[in-house]
Amino acid sequence: MTYRIDCLQYANWSEKIFRQMREGNVDAVHVTIAYHENFRETVLNIERWNRWFEQFPELIFQGRWASDVKLARDTGRTAIFFGFQNPSPIEDDIGLVRIVHTLGARFMQLSYNNQSLLATGCYEAEDPGITRMGKQVIREMNRAGLVVDMSHSADRSTLEAIEISERPIAITHANPYFWQPALRNKKDDVIRALTSADGMLGFSLYPHHLKDKSNCTLQSFCEMIAQTADMVGVEHLGIGSDLCQDHPDSVVEWMRVGRWSKEIDYGEGSASAPGFPDMPDWFRDNRDFGNIEVGLKTIGFNDAEVSGLMGDNWMQFFENSFGPAGTSA
Amino acid sequence: MTYRIDCLQYANWSEKIFRQMREGNVDAVHVTIAYHENFRETVLNIERWNRWFEQFPELIFQGRWASDVKLARDTGRTAIFFGFQNPSPIEDDIGLVRIVHTLGARFMQLSYNNQSLLATGCYEAEDPGITRMGKQVIREMNRAGLVVDMSHSADRSTLEAIEISERPIAITHANPYFWQPALRNKKDDVIRALTSADGMLGFSLYPHHLKDKSNCTLQSFCEMIAQTADMVGVEHLGIGSDLCQDHPDSVVEWMRVGRWSKEIDYGEGSASAPGFPDMPDWFRDNRDFGNIEVGLKTIGFNDAEVSGLMGDNWMQFFENSFGPAGTSA
Repeated sequence: MTYRIDCLQYANWSEKIFRQMREGNVDAVHVTIAYHENFRETVLNIERWNRWFEQFPELIFQGRWASDVKLARDTGRTAIFFGFQNPSPIEDDIGLVRIVHTLGARFMQLSYNNQSLLATGCYEAEDPGITRMGKQVIREMNRAGLVVDMSHSADRSTLEAIEISERPIAITHANPYFWQPALRNKKDDVIRALTSADGMLGFSLYPHHLKDKSNCTLQSFCEMIAQTADMVGVEHLGIGSDLCQDHPDSVVEWMRVGRWSKEIDYGEGSASAPGFPDMPDWFRDNRDFGNIEVGLKTIGFNDAEVSGLMGDNWMQFFENSFGPAGTSA
Repeated sequence: MTYRIDCLQYANWSEKIFRQMREGNVDAVHVTIAYHENFRETVLNIERWNRWFEQFPELIFQGRWASDVKLARDTGRTAIFFGFQNPSPIEDDIGLVRIVHTLGARFMQLSYNNQSLLATGCYEAEDPGITRMGKQVIREMNRAGLVVDMSHSADRSTLEAIEISERPIAITHANPYFWQPALRNKKDDVIRALTSADGMLGFSLYPHHLKDKSNCTLQSFCEMIAQTADMVGVEHLGIGSDLCQDHPDSVVEWMRVGRWSKEIDYGEGSASAPGFPDMPDWFRDNRDFGNIEVGLKTIGFNDAEVSGLMGDNWMQFFENSFGPAGTSA
């Protein structure tokens, strides 16, 4: 097998972008369909995706199971898997875990920068760990086949989630802190705990997570992957580009403050650079996955390792993660 | 094949009732999960069913496709198919048709006694037919595999729905008006139009739909079925018992007035008999389907006809109705 999977994007979706996915031979993309939306608003976002699936059946379809990645590759399309960056879609109702899984959600972050009902976000001053409801919800996510994603969570909460979860979890989009010390990037102990519990780390191309940000070189990015592989092995590593394409800056504001604040919070940006940063020139969008593949080969990964990093490792994880507990899918 | 299918029940569900389904060898039941509920409330009702599916996996499971009826029979369980008696769960949002289908809804009435956004109910004085939104929603239901059910709709709306729908529709629970002239029962022209378009009629055991109500005899019920079969053939006829078991009378009030009136409306009842009527003694609950089978044989139906009436006709209809347009399921 050789699959190309991107385990996080959030674009201003359009036919243009779906065609770029095909140009880049991307078999599957995990797309964010909720940042701060409640359940009903999330369903509205799914309805919007249903319209796109109807409009562009020759380009995309909804991915539900790992087998859909194969189907996508075999039919020259891209399978779209839904995920949430925040648990807001399940509100305060654990019964919604199964409901959103039935509707196709496959990843859910337990917190997004801030404290949630379940866990602490990476921008909070204090991290008291997984909450009472969080412990219940992790178990229900395990039962349903909804992957715990801790990309925007704080360290203690992340380590506890790894411990509590009976199935491997994911950090779909972040880089190692040793390479770029951003609050969103992950310390060595978190990466070690994650991968030694069979969890996956997806490397991010979002400039705030990159060394030298928009000026980061492909070589530096690939060296960082090689260093991480030296630390924890290559088989639990993949790509989660965090590609945020074609959005107006108002969208990064929605991502950052939702409805939780009346004041602007710049997150990883600043007052002088409040919007989306420019992508590095070697990764503008879905068409450029080939550049990463070349970069990984150049840095010395062998073919099997490159295939693993470009998608096969995620494929393996999808196979074990999306079905109800005790099954593969 | 020989299946036993009841195409409508609305009980105060409990382990006792699920065990009675097994005692009665009922392979599949279409259960009502919404009368007046909006989308979010309907999802709460699905969550409640998910808890029952978890609690009683040896008795029941969620039915999604016709093949689940076979699975139920092969594993000695009952497949539970969801339906709505009113289009309130889709609110004013056509995108919710696919969402509720994904969540397992397989039947939706276009109206319940009153005018809805889609069609007219059987208690309204005027019936202007299928509305603008109704025409759009019927087509979307056809595409998704959500069956149009006109059990509580008025005649003109029903005839128009049969005409507009590109797939066969159903009247899941009603009897012929010629036998018992209740507002809820169906005139000959409606039954003829329904069945000649391959639609199904499910005979009801709800006493207000029966000749002599609670005192109706099994023989009279079976004679009525025989007369209907003489009129339109046997292959589009089945059972939709409308069994409303173990409910307090407050529930029939909810069914009748929901939130649309502050005054009591007695529906098919009256001020002197406001509650649920007693069931006939030969059909108390799920354990008594065998009595109907015996009655049908006694009245002169042959074995194949009896099997058809007891479930095989519904099975055939399920096979053609629940998948997306152009597929079987």
